[in-house]
Amino acid sequence: MAEADPMGTIAQHVDEARLWRRHMELARHGGTSRGGVRRLALSGEEIAARRQLIEWADTLGLAVTTDAIGNLFFHMEGTGAGLAPVMTGSHIDSQPAGGKFDGVFGVLAGFEAVEAMRAAGFVPHRPIVVASWMNEEGSRFAPGMMGSEAFTARRGLDQMTAVADDAGIRVGEALAAVADAFPDVAVGPLGFPVHAFIEAHIEQGPILEEEGKSVGVVTGMQGSRRFRLTVLGEEAHAGTEPLLKRKDALLAAIDIIDGLRAAFHDPDDLVKFTVGRFEVSPNAPSVVVSRAFFSVDLRHPDWPTLKRLGDEVAAIADERKGPCAVEVREIATAESIEFPSELTTLLSDVAAELGIDHMPLYSAAGHDARQLHYHCPTAMLFVPCAGGISHNEAESCEPSDLAAGARVLAETLARLAL
Amino acid sequence: MAEADPMGTIAQHVDEARLWRRHMELARHGGTSRGGVRRLALSGEEIAARRQLIEWADTLGLAVTTDAIGNLFFHMEGTGAGLAPVMTGSHIDSQPAGGKFDGVFGVLAGFEAVEAMRAAGFVPHRPIVVASWMNEEGSRFAPGMMGSEAFTARRGLDQMTAVADDAGIRVGEALAAVADAFPDVAVGPLGFPVHAFIEAHIEQGPILEEEGKSVGVVTGMQGSRRFRLTVLGEEAHAGTEPLLKRKDALLAAIDIIDGLRAAFHDPDDLVKFTVGRFEVSPNAPSVVVSRAFFSVDLRHPDWPTLKRLGDEVAAIADERKGPCAVEVREIATAESIEFPSELTTLLSDVAAELGIDHMPLYSAAGHDARQLHYHCPTAMLFVPCAGGISHNEAESCEPSDLAAGARVLAETLARLAL
Repeated sequence: MAEADPMGTIAQHVDEARLWRRHMELARHGGTSRGGVRRLALSGEEIAARRQLIEWADTLGLAVTTDAIGNLFFHMEGTGAGLAPVMTGSHIDSQPAGGKFDGVFGVLAGFEAVEAMRAAGFVPHRPIVVASWMNEEGSRFAPGMMGSEAFTARRGLDQMTAVADDAGIRVGEALAAVADAFPDVAVGPLGFPVHAFIEAHIEQGPILEEEGKSVGVVTGMQGSRRFRLTVLGEEAHAGTEPLLKRKDALLAAIDIIDGLRAAFHDPDDLVKFTVGRFEVSPNAPSVVVSRAFFSVDLRHPDWPTLKRLGDEVAAIADERKGPCAVEVREIATAESIEFPSELTTLLSDVAAELGIDHMPLYSAAGHDARQLHYHCPTAMLFVPCAGGISHNEAESCEPSDLAAGARVLAETLARLAL
Repeated sequence: MAEADPMGTIAQHVDEARLWRRHMELARHGGTSRGGVRRLALSGEEIAARRQLIEWADTLGLAVTTDAIGNLFFHMEGTGAGLAPVMTGSHIDSQPAGGKFDGVFGVLAGFEAVEAMRAAGFVPHRPIVVASWMNEEGSRFAPGMMGSEAFTARRGLDQMTAVADDAGIRVGEALAAVADAFPDVAVGPLGFPVHAFIEAHIEQGPILEEEGKSVGVVTGMQGSRRFRLTVLGEEAHAGTEPLLKRKDALLAAIDIIDGLRAAFHDPDDLVKFTVGRFEVSPNAPSVVVSRAFFSVDLRHPDWPTLKRLGDEVAAIADERKGPCAVEVREIATAESIEFPSELTTLLSDVAAELGIDHMPLYSAAGHDARQLHYHCPTAMLFVPCAGGISHNEAESCEPSDLAAGARVLAETLARLAL
């Protein structure tokens, strides 16, 4: 098949305008007035986006399947019989106030790669599958990565289907509604052998833009540890209770966060420490806070460092809790991982051969590729996003960068599927 | 008339059992399963409680009037023609999860004082009026103190009637419903001359209990300044955005609160500094907080001190805002006030003559007496509540303390009405 694909033939058929147009069309499903996207997993908006993907797949002649967790797979046939497919893809669910490119680029770049192969007359030996993983973001049903974690059996299906959103709707019910909306989509097994998985994604950081590169070859993924802390104090009247007698859960929470900030201070600015959720009750101006709840998201590219820092959380919380009680729960742990050099080298070689400016970098965010990496040889490529801004309605990309990423992806998938 | 009231004759007729029973009976209107009261201003529960008061007043032969803001007045006639009345009273609306005594004691002690005067055969020269002020708590319609503020023309009626509750019902509509429920209650003018006002109330603090006193003579009321602060940062991905580049509104808010705590630190523990509301958005674990909102409630018995401290809020917020923007709004200011020594001396003298353990103390909480103090000579007396607990379903008082407070109130009103 190599003869049928002189280097660059497929890449030439990547259509920058079509790829861009599809991003804009998909962004209409859950589009916000500020140019962003609110498309929560298994919502009406996400069902509409699924319908759009299926229409494009039908036009391309790709078979569509789903599975018990609501992943979508678009299958391009290969000439080899019974071979494990080469897979690409990402997700189409968004943050509550998210952008047009996070996740979506990985799915649409997969479609564009197939378009380019078709246009180049390339027929792969192995099947090629474009995946759209269910609920990567975890905005509606927490935690996220459900589709890829169920596919790779990293987490049990029952555990996921019982998760409810704020309105009390369970994943299982929402999945049934999605299944009802697509009676013609065949349901395949949950998890199947994959030859290799390449995920394309926007960087969600500033490095590629600053370095003037169109493509980042992702060498690995920084680990994360996520905690939930609950501080319990005592309600009291803001006007009468002396401060020395109070058990003020808000102030205790602040003291704990200050302690964590001090412990995690890093002159190299590699530690990522985020308190993104913070809630108090009764949340009334004249009542001392009796309960404060907050999240801690801790990340570092070096796993031993991250492990050590995360192990300090409970002790610091205890030390700083003052007259209150504190409960610390670790709800997710993801070790730092490295992608196999065979794949990262292949991506770099392809980018170099196509004359596309590229550089190695690691992924600071989590992606479905983390789960797939436990299942099959996996790697990722990044494209820049303006100012590194993501998880934000202002998320923005250059059409030429998206096309460059799709070109590297298309050629890489083709070589892996030869 | 002094001859008709040898000291203590009226006080002897205060009936501890009757006073207690009335508290328990009134607590049935809006009573909760945990022994508290939920009786929001102008609600069905509060209308039922009004009906109960009117029944007792009818039995006592007191004329009942109301006014444009829904205050209730119970009038005991005096022998003098056209004299301004001596007034007492408090409120019967409650916190969302409040107790049986906050406010209610001041109204029922007024009724008990009238009962005792009647039983002692005492006929006052000036009329005596027991007031039940509308919406002191501000739980349903914010801010509170509407009845006493409208009566004393401290705030405009139109401004109050337009206030809506969470269901969108305006004060004006709710007042109309109350008026419909009591077609026989005469509507008098909003505000009229008052000779003196004495409010009885539970302490809502721990001091009387700790000191073993049954009555506190309130020398003044600590002032308060209330602020709302909004910190604006920038949403960013918790895994990718380096900390040095972030505009984290939560951390800026914490820095501001830490700055305020340091500035307001008081070795004498007189400053009351409370952050009771705290909200962040988007409030997602993996997104850097772009907006934090919090309340600051600042109180101190000394007005110049409170004024100086409150004036520091904006500067500290600005100094500690880091890379974020901050907006500071002061939404309420109440200066610290002192009650006239003629009245506090009278209350102390009466308590001493009755042999009731008493002490001077100031009021840390706000009460309707604050508004009346701008209108006529005003003072307050406190009785202890268990553990100083109030604004809480667990609020609890001793029947003997309530009776002691009612005895001091009855004798004091009688002397003022001679």
